[in-house]
Amino acid sequence: MELTFIHEGTDRTTAARAGRITTDHGVIETPIFMPVGTVGSVKAVTQQQLREDVRAQIILGNTYHLYLRPGTDVLSQAGGLHRFNGWDRPILTDSGGYQVFSLAENRKITEEGVVFQSHIDGSRHLFTPENVMDTQRRIGADIIMAFDECPPYPAEYRYVRQSMDLTHRWLDRCIRRLAETSDAYGYTQNLFPIVQGGAFADLRQASSEYIASRGAAGNAIGGLSVGEPEETMYEMCALCCSILPDDRPRYLMGVGTPWNILECIALGIDMFDCVMPTRNGRNGMLFTTAGIINIRNKKWATDFSPVDPGLASSALAGYSKAYLRHLFVANEILGLTLASLQNLTFYLHLVREARAHIIAGDFGPWKEALIPTLKQRL
Amino acid sequence: MELTFIHEGTDRTTAARAGRITTDHGVIETPIFMPVGTVGSVKAVTQQQLREDVRAQIILGNTYHLYLRPGTDVLSQAGGLHRFNGWDRPILTDSGGYQVFSLAENRKITEEGVVFQSHIDGSRHLFTPENVMDTQRRIGADIIMAFDECPPYPAEYRYVRQSMDLTHRWLDRCIRRLAETSDAYGYTQNLFPIVQGGAFADLRQASSEYIASRGAAGNAIGGLSVGEPEETMYEMCALCCSILPDDRPRYLMGVGTPWNILECIALGIDMFDCVMPTRNGRNGMLFTTAGIINIRNKKWATDFSPVDPGLASSALAGYSKAYLRHLFVANEILGLTLASLQNLTFYLHLVREARAHIIAGDFGPWKEALIPTLKQRL
Repeated sequence: MELTFIHEGTDRTTAARAGRITTDHGVIETPIFMPVGTVGSVKAVTQQQLREDVRAQIILGNTYHLYLRPGTDVLSQAGGLHRFNGWDRPILTDSGGYQVFSLAENRKITEEGVVFQSHIDGSRHLFTPENVMDTQRRIGADIIMAFDECPPYPAEYRYVRQSMDLTHRWLDRCIRRLAETSDAYGYTQNLFPIVQGGAFADLRQASSEYIASRGAAGNAIGGLSVGEPEETMYEMCALCCSILPDDRPRYLMGVGTPWNILECIALGIDMFDCVMPTRNGRNGMLFTTAGIINIRNKKWATDFSPVDPGLASSALAGYSKAYLRHLFVANEILGLTLASLQNLTFYLHLVREARAHIIAGDFGPWKEALIPTLKQRL
Repeated sequence: MELTFIHEGTDRTTAARAGRITTDHGVIETPIFMPVGTVGSVKAVTQQQLREDVRAQIILGNTYHLYLRPGTDVLSQAGGLHRFNGWDRPILTDSGGYQVFSLAENRKITEEGVVFQSHIDGSRHLFTPENVMDTQRRIGADIIMAFDECPPYPAEYRYVRQSMDLTHRWLDRCIRRLAETSDAYGYTQNLFPIVQGGAFADLRQASSEYIASRGAAGNAIGGLSVGEPEETMYEMCALCCSILPDDRPRYLMGVGTPWNILECIALGIDMFDCVMPTRNGRNGMLFTTAGIINIRNKKWATDFSPVDPGLASSALAGYSKAYLRHLFVANEILGLTLASLQNLTFYLHLVREARAHIIAGDFGPWKEALIPTLKQRL
């Protein structure tokens, strides 16, 4: 069954909305944050912890990484990524476009696609809109992202416009390819196209209109949070949201901090992903209901209070700041796991709270009151 | 309340016994394997996983490591290691003797104790029987190990005898020190003395007799599994067991493989610890009910069967060999966690099975039939 989206509440003073996405692997209550499971594993966290502690409803896989390791043959033989990694809820895969530009070596972009060398062994590969659709089919994503080019920031207007046009032509090829091929494993695989256009309002407008015209089950905004000022990101995001259809979920790719997420929910975004909670967590940066903690700081050495007293039912409830600091100082793997769990659990808590406040209608003032707390360094 | 030990079953054809140790932090059903939590964390495993998946009943802490990091001041302020790491079942701490000899630098041994330099920052420290007792008190162990010297293998008879005599004199100082000091946190802390004597039967006999004469709540055998042939280890172990009192638990330190554990249970050992399940697990070596797996091997790349079908209720039940191999090949932290969970869960499963067969009286033939399976490389 094609992915559906219904509204379940609208905020009184912002464009925030609460909704419900239904996929063949189950329901996603929005707004939602999607933990990033790069190579089929959300780093340092078990699938059980993701389900029971983090309460994740959907996770991401990276097409670039999964294509290289374990490879689509293995994933096909497994019956798709859900069977391979034991995650039975929805999975979204990005198209690999972003990783090809940020990780791969010696990439060369043409109308046909992108030739690149693997960052692992230097082997040469070609990604095209068509074969990236085939790869995501075989990975078995519930939500397949269109193959796009994500230009860097800053970039020349002319380059960004040409890149956007290419992304649009690639989108049409993605749509055609998916129409010619079948769902790989019996459940529906839904395409989300991606708005590009850099930090240029007219390009963002044109791209949003083009993307909206394709009538996809959901739409994404890419190419933000790549170095531009936060205010620019919000402006572009607001512009895209004003054009992308209201009755389809909107996904802002690769964003961001807790306050970024709240601000963009206020603009009408429904879905987020970001490596920040896991990557920063592994570096000892904790996001909590009371603010930001650098857990390596000596000040926590004898602070035996819970890591985040505001997350009552967290898997971290039994662990103190002092213990977590000790684990980081002693380079214990458990520290990486606990910090990742803290940050992911907090991110999912935050979007659940946002959802409740949207439904109650007071999301706007709640967000304004909360953000200074979330930003403060403890 | 002082630690107690009761027999709950005796095997028909071997010296194996099933028992029940009671401490102020709860009951330990023997024979038992104790996961090693070097610096207050069993590497890559959460305390919840230890309780619910591994079903550990007691864990180890390393005095040497905990003394250096986080240090006894922090542990004292926390109210002991149980409070610090959130593990509310029994904890045993080794005396630091073994680590001082295997890890520390520029160590110098005298009658008084051992001067050494930290392997972390080169700082100088002195361990004496007295201060090691004080440290273990402050760590808050339920079972405190006597301070001993663990000679290498091979070693000269004369050296091993002198070392053993020193260990005995140190034991008497440990006993005196504990008698002069109080339990640190309101629950009873029990001393286990350690038999030494290397691979020399007459020294093992003398040491066992000396240790037995001290009337401790439990007794340990140290200095084995340090490079001697397996048969020598079994011979020394059998000799010690024949002398150490039958009505006290016997703890064989630092042993070993699954078959080592079964063979030594047959000789009358009740307690084991070893870094092997976690350390080898992190290197991709899995112990399973069907034999040993090198999970990095290419042969598992498309083997989608469970990691260990013989462990039905394991936390690993949702993960295939192919997925776990992929995690190792891709250097994912989750691979370290899952491999550690597999090995610890299997070790605890093995001693529970051993216990059931001892109580049923058929442990001897069960062990003989099982060991070839456990040793085979899949």
